[in-house]
Amino acid sequence: MDYFFEPKSIVIYGASENTLKSGNHVLKNVLNYKRENIYLIHPMKDYVYGIRCYRSIFDLPIQMVDLSIIILPVEFVFAALLDCLDFGVSGIIIESGAIYLTNDFETLEKIHQLKKNYKDNYKSRIMGPNSIGIYNAFENGIGFTTSLIHFKRFPELKEKNLSMISQTGLTLSGLLFSQNNQQEVGISKIASIGNKFDINESDLLDYLEEDKNTNVIAFYLEDISEGRKFVEQCKRISKKKPLILLKSGISNKAKKAIISHTGSIAGNYKNIQALSTQFGIILVEDFAELFNVGKCLLNQPIPKGNRIGVISISGAGTVLSCDFAMKYNLELPKLSSVQLDKLKSFFPEFAWKDINNPIDIWSAVEKVGPEKAYMKSGEILLKENTIDILVYFLTGIKETEFDWRLLYELNQQYPEIPIYFGLIGGDKKILRTWRKIIEVRYNIPMFFSISNLFKTISKIMIYVNYVSKEGTFLRGVTS
Amino acid sequence: MDYFFEPKSIVIYGASENTLKSGNHVLKNVLNYKRENIYLIHPMKDYVYGIRCYRSIFDLPIQMVDLSIIILPVEFVFAALLDCLDFGVSGIIIESGAIYLTNDFETLEKIHQLKKNYKDNYKSRIMGPNSIGIYNAFENGIGFTTSLIHFKRFPELKEKNLSMISQTGLTLSGLLFSQNNQQEVGISKIASIGNKFDINESDLLDYLEEDKNTNVIAFYLEDISEGRKFVEQCKRISKKKPLILLKSGISNKAKKAIISHTGSIAGNYKNIQALSTQFGIILVEDFAELFNVGKCLLNQPIPKGNRIGVISISGAGTVLSCDFAMKYNLELPKLSSVQLDKLKSFFPEFAWKDINNPIDIWSAVEKVGPEKAYMKSGEILLKENTIDILVYFLTGIKETEFDWRLLYELNQQYPEIPIYFGLIGGDKKILRTWRKIIEVRYNIPMFFSISNLFKTISKIMIYVNYVSKEGTFLRGVTS
Repeated sequence: MDYFFEPKSIVIYGASENTLKSGNHVLKNVLNYKRENIYLIHPMKDYVYGIRCYRSIFDLPIQMVDLSIIILPVEFVFAALLDCLDFGVSGIIIESGAIYLTNDFETLEKIHQLKKNYKDNYKSRIMGPNSIGIYNAFENGIGFTTSLIHFKRFPELKEKNLSMISQTGLTLSGLLFSQNNQQEVGISKIASIGNKFDINESDLLDYLEEDKNTNVIAFYLEDISEGRKFVEQCKRISKKKPLILLKSGISNKAKKAIISHTGSIAGNYKNIQALSTQFGIILVEDFAELFNVGKCLLNQPIPKGNRIGVISISGAGTVLSCDFAMKYNLELPKLSSVQLDKLKSFFPEFAWKDINNPIDIWSAVEKVGPEKAYMKSGEILLKENTIDILVYFLTGIKETEFDWRLLYELNQQYPEIPIYFGLIGGDKKILRTWRKIIEVRYNIPMFFSISNLFKTISKIMIYVNYVSKEGTFLRGVTS
Repeated sequence: MDYFFEPKSIVIYGASENTLKSGNHVLKNVLNYKRENIYLIHPMKDYVYGIRCYRSIFDLPIQMVDLSIIILPVEFVFAALLDCLDFGVSGIIIESGAIYLTNDFETLEKIHQLKKNYKDNYKSRIMGPNSIGIYNAFENGIGFTTSLIHFKRFPELKEKNLSMISQTGLTLSGLLFSQNNQQEVGISKIASIGNKFDINESDLLDYLEEDKNTNVIAFYLEDISEGRKFVEQCKRISKKKPLILLKSGISNKAKKAIISHTGSIAGNYKNIQALSTQFGIILVEDFAELFNVGKCLLNQPIPKGNRIGVISISGAGTVLSCDFAMKYNLELPKLSSVQLDKLKSFFPEFAWKDINNPIDIWSAVEKVGPEKAYMKSGEILLKENTIDILVYFLTGIKETEFDWRLLYELNQQYPEIPIYFGLIGGDKKILRTWRKIIEVRYNIPMFFSISNLFKTISKIMIYVNYVSKEGTFLRGVTS
């Protein structure tokens, strides 16, 4: 698949100087990546942005083409595709709307014929139609995309990164954009597979399994093309690289919507749920949840069990934590006498008999300030090896701010236990500043809702339970 | 209760010039509200910030006191309280930690004795202990609070406003702060009732029922003091003013945590759920959800039924909408032939046969631009009176931006149908700018997650179903 993600030569059908056209954005994106070995096919023009146009792919001065991008009006797509196949292009991305949408029945019949015997007759691999192609991140915020949306810059690769296989173009527009500013996850590769004429999620999964920059693989799928193969792959890959699946098309109405949107049929959701329980695939409900789970898995260690320690500025945070712990079957280990004694040293005496996990830290904050209260209690919980996840709840006001570098250092000091940071209220400007430091700079995931934080933990537990059952972790997880 | 919310005279126990002390913040908040008729009780000092201190409340030059605020170390609280009772202060707020936490058994016995026969012996009303008091918004961002956190300014009252009755101080710190910048809801009054020695949620509920600036009432409750009375009140008030309840303490562990946090016992959650089904009380899981529901109820008309129209920039948005509609029992009415014909006028022909509700708007955006595509399709859905809620899904990128004023005008033009705005991905800076205009200026609620948007709709449906069953709405709701 390297000819898709790092093509040495690229042919574009439909490049344009009209900045309102998708063919313009695709060309600009391609030129951002490289300026050599770019060839345009155009019926009339000789140059677009100074780049030589040819009337046909057979007029090109080269014998081999890595990648063809077709971004033409629907009626011209099939002819261009056939040319590319005859030429022997390695990879073809059809970014135009579904070719099946033509009213020309003769063409339609030919398309169905082609699809039927495709693998026997051709070596070219086709992504789409209805794909918006691929994204590949290199070093230092440089990337390559064939998106219909022009990207001037890209998010940075991080130490660990997510890759996405998706049946929506959203991943190569809004969702990639959302990581450009104040990035919460690193993104290595994205493939928008559209209607899957040829290439499907299983093809990409094999490829991403080997990608050294991919640590977590996420899917948005409306249907699964090769059920049995996909199950085998999940079984094999899940242990090495956590898999997050947003599977839409659960409802009958959705199934019909999918038929028009990508031309195929949605799978049975019960089979999908079995994937989750058997192989630890993390099922999520929407893109926001997908990124919430992703940022925890990528930027923090994966927890070894379900024991959580909670430190909250507000009693409401501790009480709600208990409720959510019950709802999601999480343990809240009692504090040891050693831990209690240490905590008492900075809590006022009247609060001593109520210190417990979850820890209501307010009285200590009043006594010794937020920095000492939060950092000391955090260290006390982490040191004894009695918890698998540390959750902080804070309110975003000036009075509770402290040196977040200390939080980062604490996180580094206990590299096996993740820290998640929950905000319960606060000034929006302060929260934004905190997020830039805590989440973006120091990679500690932040949540602006208690329920979203705990829901995310519950999703991660699907994976933790699976991995621990498989014996990868030594410590058991109660289920 | 006016002596709490608009006191003419105020006595403070524990005022301080030390800016690290809570007594300092309380005093500053009080002085923001008024400078006349403020009296301080202090054992040693003669003046604090130039305000005269008295040794005892009996030394005051006045005969009546509307409000006493006690913000003293635990060991001094009981004596101050007794003085206030003997003096005959109308309202007393105990902002200090639970008075029960004393180790002096003799005092503890006296406190229990006092509580037992309280209502027979005294007319003073007590809020707390463990309260942080009240908030009352006047016009133009001016307000009065007794919070432990110093507020320099307050959110503006809006046309419709939320009031809160809460067992956490969070409502008078972080949650009130969060509405200060980029306000999404108006807030009229807040009462932090703490351990409920005397005043409980039912007392406040009677008061807020009559408050002309209160349109929605929200609770954070860990226990309900007078179950039967509360049920009767909900029954009476819910139809006039929607009630949102965040009830924590569902788990046994949470119940124990509550005992230490506020000193009382959590109720049976099944009774709480019955409140919801019988009287349309909207149960929420956390504060973020509470405000999501609140902003929809306050800033948009309350929907008349469960029929939603969805217009989405992405096919993924339409497919997921179908899934959520099924999950939450929402109707997605089919388009009429009139609506279809109108839509066809700005959709490319190849997309005609797939136009449906939810509407995948992308091909129309490509053809006629986002403004025309979004505004026209919105109007077509609204005009025919076939939907009860209009949902827009957009991606926050430059290319999809249009004149949001048109959206506001469309919203005004159909004043019975709410519009909710969902974002699926996008550049964070762009999303922030949009939010300031769409949500803050034009009062159209925004959601950054598809699942949170639909979950919020599902919560609102609890109320809609209740009201329609009661015959308030003419149009029926399928359930």
